Amino acid sequence: MSDNKKVAVLGGGSFGTVLANLAASNGFEVKLWVRDADQALRINSEGANTTYHPELKLSDNITASEDLGSVVMDARYVLVATPSIIFEEVITRLEPLISSASAVISCTKGIKAEPFRTMTDIIHQHLGHIINNKIGVLSGPNLAKEIADEKIAGTVIASKNEAINVDIKSILSSDTFKVFSSQDIQGVELAGALKNIYAICCGIAHAKSVGENALGFIVTRSMAEMSRFAVAKGANPITFLGLAGMGDLMATCTSRLSRNFQLGELIAKDISLLDAKDQVGQVAEGARTLEVVYHEAIKMNVSMPLVSSLYKILYSDFSSDELIQDLLDHPNEVDVEFTYKENHYE
Amino acid sequence: MSDNKKVAVLGGGSFGTVLANLAASNGFEVKLWVRDADQALRINSEGANTTYHPELKLSDNITASEDLGSVVMDARYVLVATPSIIFEEVITRLEPLISSASAVISCTKGIKAEPFRTMTDIIHQHLGHIINNKIGVLSGPNLAKEIADEKIAGTVIASKNEAINVDIKSILSSDTFKVFSSQDIQGVELAGALKNIYAICCGIAHAKSVGENALGFIVTRSMAEMSRFAVAKGANPITFLGLAGMGDLMATCTSRLSRNFQLGELIAKDISLLDAKDQVGQVAEGARTLEVVYHEAIKMNVSMPLVSSLYKILYSDFSSDELIQDLLDHPNEVDVEFTYKENHYE
Repeated sequence: MSDNKKVAVLGGGSFGTVLANLAASNGFEVKLWVRDADQALRINSEGANTTYHPELKLSDNITASEDLGSVVMDARYVLVATPSIIFEEVITRLEPLISSASAVISCTKGIKAEPFRTMTDIIHQHLGHIINNKIGVLSGPNLAKEIADEKIAGTVIASKNEAINVDIKSILSSDTFKVFSSQDIQGVELAGALKNIYAICCGIAHAKSVGENALGFIVTRSMAEMSRFAVAKGANPITFLGLAGMGDLMATCTSRLSRNFQLGELIAKDISLLDAKDQVGQVAEGARTLEVVYHEAIKMNVSMPLVSSLYKILYSDFSSDELIQDLLDHPNEVDVEFTYKENHYE
Repeated sequence: MSDNKKVAVLGGGSFGTVLANLAASNGFEVKLWVRDADQALRINSEGANTTYHPELKLSDNITASEDLGSVVMDARYVLVATPSIIFEEVITRLEPLISSASAVISCTKGIKAEPFRTMTDIIHQHLGHIINNKIGVLSGPNLAKEIADEKIAGTVIASKNEAINVDIKSILSSDTFKVFSSQDIQGVELAGALKNIYAICCGIAHAKSVGENALGFIVTRSMAEMSRFAVAKGANPITFLGLAGMGDLMATCTSRLSRNFQLGELIAKDISLLDAKDQVGQVAEGARTLEVVYHEAIKMNVSMPLVSSLYKILYSDFSSDELIQDLLDHPNEVDVEFTYKENHYE
């Protein structure tokens, strides 16, 4: 990595704050972009982001600011950890501000519709002519609260630019936070976004007490259709064996801390999507991702039985029992569709 | 499938009984080989195997017998569901009894030592000259109790002989039990056997309250080393994305019903392996598999950090804290080691 130790983190939410603190603790000079001057002042004066992590003492190397231009100025790395709904707006605002020396990493899980785009697609669309291939994505089973508490976690940085993978490891790694690398941006990113859909399915299944065999079954079929979709988008199916794939799916789909899982549990009790969303309190990203992926899968002619069932349940008032019935009715001939022949896969 | 509807199931335990009943319910003529004449008499007169499934009414198409020769005579399929410790003895006894028209399917998860052999290796070794490639393995997240209760489950039949895969589907499928097919015997079989090791790891981690990120992390690293070992033995890594791989790992590694998981929880409380085994009551297959795989991995020069740590803990009195520490200390550069290039994997 060059001598430039400047890192910008965009988004003063739960995950952004944790990322800022990891980088700052490794000696990087971190600027944290937050919503308004009040929040910036509070963080800078209190040395903590009390809204999200009241007990996390932030490193002195962090300066919060509401001024996007000054935050990204001369930054070697820009880590974007905003909510997915404002991601594109923020990226658009970066265009006149960012230098060609910067790399931009998406740390946000989500999909944008019309047209279908991942977060790195959005970065590429608006900033590609400035930063070229200095684009990456960070994804994995990364509940921010646990990282803040220094519980063990692993994550994956994916970029086509190998220097980025090396740099991000040195910026974010700690004794308890391990960073693995990949070159499969599409696979890592789609895994992180799509798994929220299947967390809803697992919440439904859990509420219906389907049992442990069924949980293994549902998660495997989830993985099958996630990877089928991602491969149609150019991903490598092998990526789904990793942290961003099965690691995140496993953690989210067994987690009663996951809002998507909670949403599924409520849906299973015949509570409407609207009421369930209200009860879960914060946005359940999975419901939005479901809508986008459902339409895209039809367009691409990719079979996604669980997505289809869940869509009927959430958006057409079908009973949640349909999910399990559809799973049983759907004919499947093979366990894993990617096959192996004469030393290569087809 | 030919007109021959004769199916032999060897082993009147929990899983054998369930398999026999699935086949019998599909109209097959099932002979169930059990330990002694008393057990056979009880099953035949009561129409139930009350030791394992007191509430499961067995199909009239099942006849239990202690006479191995009459059970396998003219059987089109022989499903072997004995405990792994007597598997080889039973297969050896089949040699003078079995016809060349029979196919033999292992339904037992385990590994045999000295030399290292899977259950289908054992079938091949003793019966290959009679039955040729009519060999298969059944594996997946298949708690017998749940299948008996008609809860949803999926399983994988793997064989190089495609007719076997087709036949086993028609023999064992039900409205709630779905059978998928694979050609990767080694992958399916090693996944089923090795996952018991990692269930112990997850039991330890769970008892130490490492958190959900860590669970996703541990399961992913488990998958990485399981598949690395299996690939060195000729398996296809893609198999691990399926039911026998991640499906079974997921179900077992989150299951407090799993004896291996329970063993891990006890080990985490500094209870000795001997005492923990006593408390768990029945054999925890994972501890035995661990020993065999540990030595085989050294011999084959395959890196298996979790296996090494767990071996130190179980057999050399290291503290169970080592498991987590080793995981953090072990340098890993990439998330998934199998890579993708120009439309094929290398």
